[in-house]
Amino acid sequence: MLAYVLEGRHAALSAHRPRPVMDPAGFVRVRTRIAGICNTDLELIRGYMGFSGVLGHEFVGEALDGALAGRRVVGGINFGCDNCERCDAGDSRHCATRKVLGILGADGVIAEEFLIPERNLVEVPDTVTDVQAVFAEPLAAACEIIEQLGGTTRHRRTLVLGDGKLGLLIAQVLAVHGAEVDLVGHHLDELEWIEDARVNRLARTLPEKATAAYDLVVEATGSASGLAEALRATEPRGTLVLKSTVAGLHEIDLAPIVINEITVLGSRCGRMKSAVELLERTSIMTEPLIDSRRELSEAESAFARAQEKGARKVLLVNP
Amino acid sequence: MLAYVLEGRHAALSAHRPRPVMDPAGFVRVRTRIAGICNTDLELIRGYMGFSGVLGHEFVGEALDGALAGRRVVGGINFGCDNCERCDAGDSRHCATRKVLGILGADGVIAEEFLIPERNLVEVPDTVTDVQAVFAEPLAAACEIIEQLGGTTRHRRTLVLGDGKLGLLIAQVLAVHGAEVDLVGHHLDELEWIEDARVNRLARTLPEKATAAYDLVVEATGSASGLAEALRATEPRGTLVLKSTVAGLHEIDLAPIVINEITVLGSRCGRMKSAVELLERTSIMTEPLIDSRRELSEAESAFARAQEKGARKVLLVNP
Repeated sequence: MLAYVLEGRHAALSAHRPRPVMDPAGFVRVRTRIAGICNTDLELIRGYMGFSGVLGHEFVGEALDGALAGRRVVGGINFGCDNCERCDAGDSRHCATRKVLGILGADGVIAEEFLIPERNLVEVPDTVTDVQAVFAEPLAAACEIIEQLGGTTRHRRTLVLGDGKLGLLIAQVLAVHGAEVDLVGHHLDELEWIEDARVNRLARTLPEKATAAYDLVVEATGSASGLAEALRATEPRGTLVLKSTVAGLHEIDLAPIVINEITVLGSRCGRMKSAVELLERTSIMTEPLIDSRRELSEAESAFARAQEKGARKVLLVNP
Repeated sequence: MLAYVLEGRHAALSAHRPRPVMDPAGFVRVRTRIAGICNTDLELIRGYMGFSGVLGHEFVGEALDGALAGRRVVGGINFGCDNCERCDAGDSRHCATRKVLGILGADGVIAEEFLIPERNLVEVPDTVTDVQAVFAEPLAAACEIIEQLGGTTRHRRTLVLGDGKLGLLIAQVLAVHGAEVDLVGHHLDELEWIEDARVNRLARTLPEKATAAYDLVVEATGSASGLAEALRATEPRGTLVLKSTVAGLHEIDLAPIVINEITVLGSRCGRMKSAVELLERTSIMTEPLIDSRRELSEAESAFARAQEKGARKVLLVNP
C-alpha cells in the first residue's frame, strides 16, 4: 500500500509498504480517509524522538474491524501498556511505556491503512464533516486546557500567544468556554475570521499595556522566547499554560514565576471525545486553518508545502 | 540608634541612625528583640533590588505604639498601597506598588527600632519563644505552599530538594500536614534531628530510583540547577513548587513540563498568622537551624559569619 515512511532522517513515499495485519490483541485496522500534517511530523523528520516508521497521527478514517467497523472514526494517539497504575487510572496518555501513533514505536496514519487499539477510537457523528474531524487531535490538545482548568474559563481575561494552527484552535476553544480572549501573533492581518469566533486580535507583539494584564495566558508560539513574553503578560497569581514543546536548553529567567507566584501548567494531549463533542455542538472554525488538500500519492509535495514558512494545515486525502 | 545600613553595595553598622518617627499614617514603631539574617540580605548587599537603607526583614519585636503596644509581635513584610485591586482583595503581597520591609523602599529591622504598618503585625502567644518567633517569616513562606495546595498535603509522596534553612522548614511543614517527605541535600549527615520531624533523609543527590517518583516536589536548593532535578523527580501530572528565586538567565529544558503535564507553582511569601499558629500548636523545630546569636552591636561579625559556606541562621539580639 501507499505510505509516507521515515527512516533515519529520510522521509519518502513508499508504494510497497505491507498492509498492516490485525494481530496485536485489542488492535483494529482503520482505513485513512484524511490525514493532517502536524509540525511534530516535521520535527520527527529532523530527528526528534528518533522515530522510524509511517508518519502521521492526525486522521479521520473508517474502522475496518471491531464494533465500529464501517463507521467514521478519530482516535487517541497514546497506546498505553494497559498494565500499570497510570493505565488503570484511565490515563494511558502518561503511561511510562506507552507507544504513540506515528511518533513513538507505532506506525502512523499517512498510509492507506493503519492499526490502533480499538478502545482509542471515537465515532464521528454524521453532522461533523471529514475536514472538521481531521482536526480532532489538535482540538483535543486545546480542550485539555479546559479540563486542566476545571472545566470552564468563563470571564477569564485571557491571552493566547501564537497564531499558528494550535494557537487559533486554543483561542476559539477558550472563547467558546466563556473567556475574553486576546490573540498575539505574526499573521493577524490575515485572520479577520477569528473575530467571528469572539477572539480579539490584539497586536503582532505584546504591547506594554499587556504587562501583568491577564489572569490566564496560553503560550503556543512554538518558540523558546514565548515563555518570557507569557510571564510578562501574566498577572500575579495568574495561570500560564505552556503548550510549546521546544526541545533542548534555552535561556530563561525563572524569578518572575516565584516573585509573582505564577502557576505554570504544562499541557499536552487531550481527550478525543471532548474534541468531537465540541465539533458537534459548537461552531469551532477549522476551514480557515486549511492550507491545501492533496492526495496521499502526493505526500512528497504535501510535506514540501508544509515545511514552507506560513503554511497552514496541509491535508492528505486517501481517495 | 544602632542600625545595620546598606548604601550602594557597602553595608556597615551605624551608631547614629536617627530613630524612626511615627509619622506615616497607619505605621507603628516596633523595638527589635531579635532579628535574623536571611540569604536575601546577602543578595541585597550584592546589588539585588538596588536597595539602600536599614537591612533585615526577619524579626520578633515589641510594639511601641498602637493596639499591640507592649506586646511581642512578628509582622508581614509587604506594605501594600491600600488603594488598589490587590490590596482591596487582602493581598498586599502582590500589590504592584508595594514596599517591602528591608528589601524595597522601607527600612528594615536590623536596628534598635523600625516602622511597620500596624495591620501587618501579629501578636506572639506566650507559649512561643523569641527564638522560635524570629523564624515566623521564613516559616510563613513554607506555609504558603500548604495554602497554595488547598490546605493539606496528606499522603502525598513528597520530595524536598535542598536542606538549607528554608528547605528544612518546608520539609517539616509538609510533614506536619501529612505528607510523606523525602529530603535531598548536601548536609544530610548533620541532620539526624530532622527524622524526629518524620522527614526521611534520602540522599545527597537525587538517586535514579527517584525519577518520576513523587507527586509533589519542592525546589528549595537556591540554585538554578535545582529545577532540572526537580522536573526529573516529578511524576506525570505532578506538582513542582518553585521556591528558589535565582536572578538572571539560566539554561533549562522546559519540554518535560509540557510532555509530563507538570504543574509548576511559583511560591513566595506567606501569611504570618499561619506561621505563628503553627509554632503554637505543633513541634516545628527551629533551634537546630540556629548557627549563632550575637548582639546588634556585633552586626558586622554576624554578617561575616552569615556569608560563610554552611552557616545556618545567624541571629542578632537587641539587648
